[in-house]
Amino acid sequence: MSNNADYKLIYWPIPGRGEFIRLCLEHAGASWTDTPGGVDEVLSYVNGSADLGANPAPLAPPILKDEKNGVILSQTAAILMYMAPKLGLDGGKQHMHTAQHALTGLDFNDEVHNTHHPIGSALYYEDQKNEAARYTEVFRRERIPKFLTYLDTNLGRNTQTDKHLTGDSITYADYVWWQVLDGLFYSFPKRMHALLPTYTNIKPFYDNIKSQPRIAAYLASERRLPYSQGVFRYYAELDKA
Amino acid sequence: MSNNADYKLIYWPIPGRGEFIRLCLEHAGASWTDTPGGVDEVLSYVNGSADLGANPAPLAPPILKDEKNGVILSQTAAILMYMAPKLGLDGGKQHMHTAQHALTGLDFNDEVHNTHHPIGSALYYEDQKNEAARYTEVFRRERIPKFLTYLDTNLGRNTQTDKHLTGDSITYADYVWWQVLDGLFYSFPKRMHALLPTYTNIKPFYDNIKSQPRIAAYLASERRLPYSQGVFRYYAELDKA
Repeated sequence: MSNNADYKLIYWPIPGRGEFIRLCLEHAGASWTDTPGGVDEVLSYVNGSADLGANPAPLAPPILKDEKNGVILSQTAAILMYMAPKLGLDGGKQHMHTAQHALTGLDFNDEVHNTHHPIGSALYYEDQKNEAARYTEVFRRERIPKFLTYLDTNLGRNTQTDKHLTGDSITYADYVWWQVLDGLFYSFPKRMHALLPTYTNIKPFYDNIKSQPRIAAYLASERRLPYSQGVFRYYAELDKA
Repeated sequence: MSNNADYKLIYWPIPGRGEFIRLCLEHAGASWTDTPGGVDEVLSYVNGSADLGANPAPLAPPILKDEKNGVILSQTAAILMYMAPKLGLDGGKQHMHTAQHALTGLDFNDEVHNTHHPIGSALYYEDQKNEAARYTEVFRRERIPKFLTYLDTNLGRNTQTDKHLTGDSITYADYVWWQVLDGLFYSFPKRMHALLPTYTNIKPFYDNIKSQPRIAAYLASERRLPYSQGVFRYYAELDKA
């Protein structure tokens, strides 16, 4: 990270949806920085006081600024797709299937968020605990296996020896799914460890992505932020095998 | 539509998430067909019995088959982005901002779905009515204005005289937002008509898109399916000014 970085990620100081973007930047060894101005700078983009130039206004972070051309862009998937060809992470001819996998992983991520906020992000978890318990029961029983089966099936359909989703190299879709898996191990350890032996390809995939040299270094660094009050939270009452 | 169409949309016989794709195909006058084999054919893609060739398995419809090259693709946004350059709907140099707008509109669509299914799609509305009422109160008060302000602001930032979101021509993002607006007028008529005068650009935008010649013809045809038990439903108890 440097003050003259090529990319600036405007996001809260949590993993959250920004982490998909951070992992891709780290994989490629890109020149990037988190938000130097902290939360105040993030808020300036949300409340309309930041200078957007000719770019559209964002609804919410994450927001990427490409310092080389002034592009400012929001929406996690749009940012990933914009960066991916530049970072060598788009899957080449299979870019459309990379997009399918990434968007499906991001849907899964949204459903994880809804386990603690089924009524609305504007309310505290404590004010929607009953609904969260009911949502999460369905999520644990039906949604986790449905999404993990999707991942396992499509890892199996890619016949490359090292486990990734699309074509012959790692893509941003792999980082989306890896991050969701990692978050789920934190948020739903009992359920995940009960389910994992059911699947052939998920553990090798998780380990393959985690052991990419630049990713291993990133995960061991202080740049990798701890899970806290973002998408992935640990509430013991929501986890069951 | 014909039996030898260039594109086949594999989706349930409702507007739902398939409607964003249908509108783009109709705008371009593309050769396309809905699912000739009906619900059984849709289910064959979901249960794994359809021949996918070298394509990955989908999690859920909508699914597009490109008959010219055998590509099979799922995820609404991935389908729209795949088709858009071929249909002249990608926004050219501003393709990344088209993606931002479309993805934000699709997030809004997901939140509409959650108004009647906040706990899970696997349960009936009748089994989650209390949670739906609570979710929808926040949705009406905070989320509809937040998303409409995004749309109105960005329509205003595009200084073209006819109202659309990106650059100098209509894109798939305009069809995403138009369809969500149209569905909201159906599902939340009181709330939408109370809010609409607050915004300068939304009514001109809605009318501009609706009056595109091929779209006007499509909307008047039997190919445009009525709202029923999909994303957009009318429950009188959920709508308030």
